[in-house]
Amino acid sequence: MAYTVIRYENGRLHALDQTQLPWKSVLVELGTLEAVEQAIRTLQVRGAPLIGIAAAYGVCVALGETATRDAARTRGEEAVRRLAATRPTAVNLFWALDRMSAVLADLPARGWLARLEAEAGAIHQETEAQDAAMAEYGVGLLAAGARVITHCNTGPLATGGRGTALGVLIAGQAKLGGLHVYVDETRPRWQGAHLTTWELAGHDVPHTLICDNMAAILMRSEPIHSVWVGADRIAANGDTANKIGTYGLAIVARHHGVPFYVVAPSSTVDLALADGVGIPIEQRAPAEVATPEGHRLAPDGTAAWNPAFDVTPAELVTAIVTERGVLRGPRYDLRAALGAG
Amino acid sequence: MAYTVIRYENGRLHALDQTQLPWKSVLVELGTLEAVEQAIRTLQVRGAPLIGIAAAYGVCVALGETATRDAARTRGEEAVRRLAATRPTAVNLFWALDRMSAVLADLPARGWLARLEAEAGAIHQETEAQDAAMAEYGVGLLAAGARVITHCNTGPLATGGRGTALGVLIAGQAKLGGLHVYVDETRPRWQGAHLTTWELAGHDVPHTLICDNMAAILMRSEPIHSVWVGADRIAANGDTANKIGTYGLAIVARHHGVPFYVVAPSSTVDLALADGVGIPIEQRAPAEVATPEGHRLAPDGTAAWNPAFDVTPAELVTAIVTERGVLRGPRYDLRAALGAG
Repeated sequence: MAYTVIRYENGRLHALDQTQLPWKSVLVELGTLEAVEQAIRTLQVRGAPLIGIAAAYGVCVALGETATRDAARTRGEEAVRRLAATRPTAVNLFWALDRMSAVLADLPARGWLARLEAEAGAIHQETEAQDAAMAEYGVGLLAAGARVITHCNTGPLATGGRGTALGVLIAGQAKLGGLHVYVDETRPRWQGAHLTTWELAGHDVPHTLICDNMAAILMRSEPIHSVWVGADRIAANGDTANKIGTYGLAIVARHHGVPFYVVAPSSTVDLALADGVGIPIEQRAPAEVATPEGHRLAPDGTAAWNPAFDVTPAELVTAIVTERGVLRGPRYDLRAALGAG
Repeated sequence: MAYTVIRYENGRLHALDQTQLPWKSVLVELGTLEAVEQAIRTLQVRGAPLIGIAAAYGVCVALGETATRDAARTRGEEAVRRLAATRPTAVNLFWALDRMSAVLADLPARGWLARLEAEAGAIHQETEAQDAAMAEYGVGLLAAGARVITHCNTGPLATGGRGTALGVLIAGQAKLGGLHVYVDETRPRWQGAHLTTWELAGHDVPHTLICDNMAAILMRSEPIHSVWVGADRIAANGDTANKIGTYGLAIVARHHGVPFYVVAPSSTVDLALADGVGIPIEQRAPAEVATPEGHRLAPDGTAAWNPAFDVTPAELVTAIVTERGVLRGPRYDLRAALGAG
């Protein structure tokens, strides 16, 4: 299975429109800063690492035909500010934009666009390399024939590389065989039902879709080997913000003694935050809960709550798999483990 | 707010078609045994206590113009067998049909239809009285201003009376005031989103719809007073089968130290079962998960798992509210508490 998730070529950025999956594979051109912002806000482009890559390329797109270095810097800094405002939780976005800002602050007199493009390309390539490393480390925690649960989408669609948690499972099936992945549908936006099933089918990994509320009884009904999720932001103590529903799944896993693994590159770690209390949680439109994809579920005027993420305390995380190795809990000191890098 | 959930009058059975709520309030006539069976199978009529009432009336409907007592007995016994096969988990169905069977076994020579109708009517009236008693006992566990979570639908729609868990909350708002109910949407059939929001709005109880996977972070974000659910079958040790998602919610409540209350009449208790292991769990069509209400969520051919219920171990249940009083856990001996009745 081969599909292009994001591509920047000859100054043009294209991305797979994930809101049309699994029904249609449409590569859309994001030809302006506004188009990149909109794509991130509406989840056409989603997944913490992929958002970072898209934002980095977005700075290049924003420059367009800018004629002078000074104008490019001004326009680039504006793009950074605007892209930083698209979504608050995933820290990879800010990490990538910080790298682009550093380049903007020191633009060469000539070839400044090429310099920015090189930085965005490096972010993309590093993400791919990190995914490969995480897959290798993660497979070491799996076993042939393992039945596992995953939440949201953390495959190639989420990173532009092999994926984080789902990358481990796809690699595990290829290397060990016999895996069966139970896929949380992941309300309210159904990334599990729409995207993860599609990616697992494409990679020939046997899987079964479940509602999010079935994970608990599944752990009592079947021998579940482990739970695998990605992350949008990890604090220095290991507290992990991830797609809404992750925290409940972690509690349920702990109750059944099922290992709970977080897979994320070090760019997802926010060493500036001591713990998860400081992680900003995006609140999205109530309509995503009450009228998902135009399908009305509740009487007019029904109030709904729609936090897009929750925070799982570090003590519920069995291990964090990064590109630099496997960090084991229940206590983490990510400043010591990753800060020196 | 007044609405007829079920009505048997002059030999004709009418029920509110719950699959059309909250969009349309349509009272359909269930004029044949087949119509009653179909209504229960397709969830037009649902909720453990209401299924029992509908099945009891269904035996009367099945008799139709039967001319002789012997023919009535034969036809009635066939109706009992067929209605018992509609849904396997809720024990109120079998409890009600057992009562109808006992009457069938001892039909009077004259007035046998009236005798059966009287028994079905008694089941209905007893359920109403039990609901009122449970509401009174349950309110004693609430507090003014309590923020609570509920799962599935357990209101008047589920019993034909005041409801079980939701009956307590509606009574609590009337008596104590200031309640706020967080309503689990209750995948895959959305009874919370469709029915509970509609009932709470009708009874002027402030409420907010959430996805099932948001309950955990809600308990960390807000001071949640308690969780309230109904039951489809309770074993002698207190293990409780209820709508899928209840078990995970109970684990999450325990993790946060939030009391977890089950509200159910004694007809929901199956003293023949020592514990929850023996409770049969209905498996429904995978399409309810993958293509809910015709809304496709996953690629063609995606396998899905769809257990309609799960079992919550008694040790996670803070108390069981019945019409005979409040039974407190974590250990229950329902044979001793209810068996003598």
